[in-house]
Amino acid sequence: MQPKKNIVHLPVYQPGKPMEEVKRELGLTEVIKLASNENPFGCSPKAKEAIISAVDNASIYPDGGAVDLTAAVSAHLGVQPNQVIFGAGSDEVILMIARAFLTPEDETITAFPTFPQYKHNAEVEGAAVIEVPVDEEGRHDLKAMLAKVNEKTKIVWICNPNNPTGTMLSEAEITAFLDAVPSRVMVILDEAYAEYNVTGEYPDSISLLQKYNNIVVLRTFSKIYGLASLRIGFGVGHPDVIRSVNQVREPFNTTGFAQKAALAAVNDQSFIESCREANAAGIQQLNAAFDKLGLRYFDAHGNFVMVDVERPGGEVFQGLLRKGIIVRHDPSWGYPTRIRVTVGSTEQNEKFLKALEEVLSEVAVS
Amino acid sequence: MQPKKNIVHLPVYQPGKPMEEVKRELGLTEVIKLASNENPFGCSPKAKEAIISAVDNASIYPDGGAVDLTAAVSAHLGVQPNQVIFGAGSDEVILMIARAFLTPEDETITAFPTFPQYKHNAEVEGAAVIEVPVDEEGRHDLKAMLAKVNEKTKIVWICNPNNPTGTMLSEAEITAFLDAVPSRVMVILDEAYAEYNVTGEYPDSISLLQKYNNIVVLRTFSKIYGLASLRIGFGVGHPDVIRSVNQVREPFNTTGFAQKAALAAVNDQSFIESCREANAAGIQQLNAAFDKLGLRYFDAHGNFVMVDVERPGGEVFQGLLRKGIIVRHDPSWGYPTRIRVTVGSTEQNEKFLKALEEVLSEVAVS
Repeated sequence: MQPKKNIVHLPVYQPGKPMEEVKRELGLTEVIKLASNENPFGCSPKAKEAIISAVDNASIYPDGGAVDLTAAVSAHLGVQPNQVIFGAGSDEVILMIARAFLTPEDETITAFPTFPQYKHNAEVEGAAVIEVPVDEEGRHDLKAMLAKVNEKTKIVWICNPNNPTGTMLSEAEITAFLDAVPSRVMVILDEAYAEYNVTGEYPDSISLLQKYNNIVVLRTFSKIYGLASLRIGFGVGHPDVIRSVNQVREPFNTTGFAQKAALAAVNDQSFIESCREANAAGIQQLNAAFDKLGLRYFDAHGNFVMVDVERPGGEVFQGLLRKGIIVRHDPSWGYPTRIRVTVGSTEQNEKFLKALEEVLSEVAVS
Repeated sequence: MQPKKNIVHLPVYQPGKPMEEVKRELGLTEVIKLASNENPFGCSPKAKEAIISAVDNASIYPDGGAVDLTAAVSAHLGVQPNQVIFGAGSDEVILMIARAFLTPEDETITAFPTFPQYKHNAEVEGAAVIEVPVDEEGRHDLKAMLAKVNEKTKIVWICNPNNPTGTMLSEAEITAFLDAVPSRVMVILDEAYAEYNVTGEYPDSISLLQKYNNIVVLRTFSKIYGLASLRIGFGVGHPDVIRSVNQVREPFNTTGFAQKAALAAVNDQSFIESCREANAAGIQQLNAAFDKLGLRYFDAHGNFVMVDVERPGGEVFQGLLRKGIIVRHDPSWGYPTRIRVTVGSTEQNEKFLKALEEVLSEVAVS
């Protein structure tokens, strides 16, 4: 019973402590979680209503084709229904793309650091993963990534805005890259945080689909739509590509509850607008405070900011945790003095900033 | 952008018509769906409460380790938490096992007809699938399956009770097979319908795990637990095997709603007992009526019966559909004159039987 050779080195998910246990151990009554880029304002009330009204159908299999949701999302985006595929989060769309396209003979290119599921799934398929460091501003180095493209390259993964750095690539940068990459190379534009963008420079990737057959745009309901618990995201691409991905999709890969909630959520764009505005204000609030503290941060275009705390990130993380604030620090990022904080509500941001100031005075500068 | 060679022949899921459209087209006000082996009694009221109480956390990522649910299920079964892995339905556990273990060099053995996801996922991994026809009573031919085991065999899939035939293999038959199969071969015991069993002969597979390290038992919350919409199932096996499967698992593969509902459901075994009793009575109701109609049927041990209607199954399916009853007929089963009907409530079964009698008088015997 030997597993595949290419998976034996992969890490096993280590379950974190349940929140209640953390509270008990640290004697905390309130914990503010700014660690997972969740929406601090929850989801649309209409999505909640949709979940509750689906309860009496819990025993019925979901619509395997997600027909109603596909119609709503494709109409919202202005694409054809056969250009859209849903997954249990965009995570599963990444899995399905890797499973449909990558072989041990292929190479695939990602930034570093970036969202880890591109590498994970490529490794499960046995493909070689070429990681190209982001630049000093935390942005994808598209020139260096392009230089790694060769005849073995099957997929390039671009996370825009990039998780964990938060930086954005403009439409001009993306199209220049797409014009230079051979059209047989698939380019995945992971836009999990697209709806947070308030610049005029973010790519209109859905329109780019008309010119570039080789791109697949990933979007999710886990971030601004506030439905992370329900696991639903999607990919948009050329019908032929989506058809291939559909060939490896499990027939009932998304829940009935997720489909109903996402349908209600996509039809409540006023909720999305209010979250986008609040998030932009929250980034200004955080950046202004970081400026005052003399801390450098990457230009943030998602719902999180990566800030250099000039002290060991793990110690700052622990110090914040003891004060009931959970942020993110991951040694594998290669940024030993940076933490990533999700933009919370104004009040949550204030509490985080107050706690951070205290922790910075307690932890020695690296 | 060439997909993997081994997936290009795979069928793409064709979405069925939404129920409301079927009703409109056929001018029906009531439709009874006995097609997908769903629980006609829904789910435990406690599971519904758990779903509703989770609504305010829709924006929060699920517990990636499903810690609370793992604790509850492992305690219920009497195994260690590191022997259990959850998936989005047992479908996803099948996917993960295939993805972790099967390579193009491997062979894998299934019955025919059986649940199609074993073959589907093995083919995505490029493994050779050896299909062994069930016997005349619709039961796995374990002797013939054993004869196909060779040095290339990696996994044998046993669906017990078998979907779509409904037949059962006894503990004596399973252990005789396990004693004969080399211990390096993984044997998957898919027990999606285990809880419906009312014989004293069904294998206690969880206990068999103590003797046989090479088995993985699959169970689901989609059938008797009535949570099909939420997509949650699990595998139980040796910790080393479960660890390998965990290496290919997406970090957030099951929803928070599913975890909460399943936890409530597993703690309400009185609901399960009442469903098991009602289902056993329903099978008797159906079988007695089939006897009266002179129709042969396979010995049913799940929540469905496969009956030989002695007429083209597709025509009988269509005739029932026009009367508002949806059952299952699949030409790929290789049983041109059989349909599969899910056991409904007493009243649903009566309506089905009345409609069937009418349809049998309308459709010519093959």
